[in-house]
Amino acid sequence: MIKKYYLLSPGPTPIPDKVLSVAAEPIIHHRTPEFSNIFMEVTEGIKTVFGTKEDVFILTCSGTGAMETAVVNTLSPGDKVITINGGKFGERWGNICKVYGVVYKDIILEWGADFTKERLAEELKADPNVKAVFATLSETSTGAIYDIKGFGEVVSGTDAILVVDGISGVGAAPCPMDEWKVDVMVTGSQKSFMIPPGLAYIAFSQKAWKMVETSKLPKFYFDAKKAKKNLGNKTTPWTPAISLIIQQKKALEIINGMGLPKLFEHHRILGDATRAGVKAVGLGLLAVNPGNILTAVKVPAGVDGVKLVKTMQSKYMAYIAGAQDPNKGKFFRIAHLGYMGGFDIITALSALEMTLLDLGYAFEPGAAMKAAQTVLKENWQ
Amino acid sequence: MIKKYYLLSPGPTPIPDKVLSVAAEPIIHHRTPEFSNIFMEVTEGIKTVFGTKEDVFILTCSGTGAMETAVVNTLSPGDKVITINGGKFGERWGNICKVYGVVYKDIILEWGADFTKERLAEELKADPNVKAVFATLSETSTGAIYDIKGFGEVVSGTDAILVVDGISGVGAAPCPMDEWKVDVMVTGSQKSFMIPPGLAYIAFSQKAWKMVETSKLPKFYFDAKKAKKNLGNKTTPWTPAISLIIQQKKALEIINGMGLPKLFEHHRILGDATRAGVKAVGLGLLAVNPGNILTAVKVPAGVDGVKLVKTMQSKYMAYIAGAQDPNKGKFFRIAHLGYMGGFDIITALSALEMTLLDLGYAFEPGAAMKAAQTVLKENWQ
Repeated sequence: MIKKYYLLSPGPTPIPDKVLSVAAEPIIHHRTPEFSNIFMEVTEGIKTVFGTKEDVFILTCSGTGAMETAVVNTLSPGDKVITINGGKFGERWGNICKVYGVVYKDIILEWGADFTKERLAEELKADPNVKAVFATLSETSTGAIYDIKGFGEVVSGTDAILVVDGISGVGAAPCPMDEWKVDVMVTGSQKSFMIPPGLAYIAFSQKAWKMVETSKLPKFYFDAKKAKKNLGNKTTPWTPAISLIIQQKKALEIINGMGLPKLFEHHRILGDATRAGVKAVGLGLLAVNPGNILTAVKVPAGVDGVKLVKTMQSKYMAYIAGAQDPNKGKFFRIAHLGYMGGFDIITALSALEMTLLDLGYAFEPGAAMKAAQTVLKENWQ
Repeated sequence: MIKKYYLLSPGPTPIPDKVLSVAAEPIIHHRTPEFSNIFMEVTEGIKTVFGTKEDVFILTCSGTGAMETAVVNTLSPGDKVITINGGKFGERWGNICKVYGVVYKDIILEWGADFTKERLAEELKADPNVKAVFATLSETSTGAIYDIKGFGEVVSGTDAILVVDGISGVGAAPCPMDEWKVDVMVTGSQKSFMIPPGLAYIAFSQKAWKMVETSKLPKFYFDAKKAKKNLGNKTTPWTPAISLIIQQKKALEIINGMGLPKLFEHHRILGDATRAGVKAVGLGLLAVNPGNILTAVKVPAGVDGVKLVKTMQSKYMAYIAGAQDPNKGKFFRIAHLGYMGGFDIITALSALEMTLLDLGYAFEPGAAMKAAQTVLKENWQ
C-alpha cells in the first residue's frame, strides 16, 4: 500500500500547498522596498490575529526565543514574578526567569488542571511587589486552555503585567490582546500561523513598554527597543528569515481572508469532533478545561502508551504526539491546529481505532469515527 | 524590456533552483528518525565546511544570534577581551560585550585597513588577563579579509580563546577551524551556505568548552550546553527551522560535492575577475587586503555614490550593496559569494558600466567586462 504521512502534531502543523510553493521562489534582498512592503503587510496581518493596535515584532527564532524576549525586555535582576506552571511550557517561564536572576513564584499545577482568576487574585494580593504574571493560553503539553480573559481582568488592576505564551493558542482560540488586557503576547509561526517553524512574534502593551524602558536584564539579539527602532524603518535589526516571512504573507491571506471568528469556530468544531470521537471509544481527556488546539487523551489501563504512539506514527504514519516527560506513556496528543480539515480528524480517529485494535483494547470499531462524523456533519457549512 | 533581478549582495545570496524547490515540500516533524537523519547529515556537512572535528550546532537565528551565542557561552561578567573592529560587523562584537558587562578593548581600524598578527601579539602581551580575542574572517562591510591563521598562531600560545565571525567568509575562503586553532567559529546560512537566511552555525574547540563550563553570563535560547545535550539525541533543544535545514541538506550536497578547495578557487577567480574589472575603468578598492567574498569599490570623485547604488538597483535591477553608515556613498560592494557563476560577474560589471555612463563618469566602455572576461577565460575549466 501507499502509506501517506499525516502530520497531527501541535507544531509543526500542515502547511497549505500555496504557502509551500512560495518558498521555492528566488530569494530577494531584505533591505529593499519590495521586501519592506511584504514585511509591513505581514506585521499588519499578525496585529489583526493578535487583536492589538500595538507594534508586532517578527523575530527569527523559535517560540522559546520569543518567550526569552518577553522576559529580558521587561524585567530587571531581582524582580519578583509569578509563573503559572501547568505543564512543560508553563514550566519554561520559570526556567528562563531562573537563568536571569528573576525571583519567580512557580505555581505548579497538576498536568491538565485548571487555574482560576480568583486564585491568581489571591496570589497577587499576597505579594503586591510582583512585577509580572507569566501565563499560557494553550498549554501544548496537556491541551489545557486557561482563562486569559480572567487573568487580564485581575492583573490589569495591579502594577504587574500579564505575559502570555500564546505559541500554540493564538489564531486558533480567542485571545484578543488589547481587549483582554494582555501586556506581552508571544507566538510561533508553525502553529495556527500555517507556515514552517523559524519565526516568532511578540507584541507589548503601553504598560509593558514602560517596563521595557527601565528593564536592566541584558539583551542584544532579542532587544525589543532595537526591533522597535527598525520597525520604524520598515525593517528588522538583523537579517530576518526572508523566505518564511514571504510564506507568512501568503498564509495570512488565508487566515485573515477567512477571518478570526470563522477560524475559531473551525477549531471548535474539530475539537468537539475529536473529543466526541475518543469519548465514544471509552477514552478520557487529560485536561479539565480542554482547548480546541489539541486534545490530550489518557491511555486506557492495559494499553502501552508508548507503543500506542509508536504504532500510530510508524505503522499508520499518523504523526500524533506522545506525552512529554515526566508523563511519557500516560497520554497522547492529537492536534487539530493550523491548516487541517474535518477529514483529517476522521483519519486521525481511524488510525487510532486501528492502533487500539492492534493493542487489544476492547471497543466498538467505528464508534470514534461515527461520533466525530456526527459532530462534523451537524456543523458542516 | 524584461528586466531580471540580479542578487549581487553579500547576503542573502542566490540560491540554486534545486535548493529552492525542496522548500516547497510538505513539512515533516522534527522529532522523527526521518528528520534526525537529515539533521545529523547537515551537522556533519557543516563540520566538513568548518574544518572541525568538534560538534557544530545549528541555531535558528541570524548570524548575530550566533555571535551572541559565542559571547554568552564562554564569558563571565567583568572578563577582559579584545575586539578587532574593522567595520560594521567587527564593531558588533564590542556592542554585544558591552550589553553583558564584558570589558572589551576595542581595536578600531580604519575601514578597509589590515591588522597584523604581530600587532595582536603586542596587545595580548600588554594584558595577559585577556580571556578572548574576537575577530572577523571577512568583514562584510568593507570586503577586507583578515589573517585568521596568524591570529590563531598568536592566540593559541596564550590562555585566551580566538572567536571568529566567519559569517560571510566560511565556505568561500579558507578558515579550517581545527588546523588554524580557531576556538569558536560562527557563520550564517544565507552566505556561502547557499540557502535563505534563518539559520546560523557555531562550533567550539575543547579549549573553548572549558570556558563554557565556567561561563556565568546568562543564556537560555542560546545555551550551548543544552544544544550539546540535545545533539547527543540527534535533535535541537527548541523547534528548529525545519524547512531551512532540509534546504541546507540539498545545498551541502552541492558544496561538499564540489569540495572546498574547488569552491575557494571558484571564489578566487570571481574575486580576481571583479577586481580586474573595476580597476580597468579606473576605480580603486577599499580594502588593503581584499577577500574573495565581496569587493568594496571606492566611488570616484565627481560621482554620487548613493545615486550609483540606487541606479544599479532600480534601473538595472543589479542588487549590489551600498556602504553602511558612517561611510554611506563613499563606496559600493559587489558580492561574488554563494551560488554565483562567472557570467554573474560580467552582468554586474555591465550594469556598473551602464550606471557609470548614466552618471557621466569618463571611462572606456567595455573595459571592465573585457578585463573580467580575460580573467574568467584564463581560469575557465
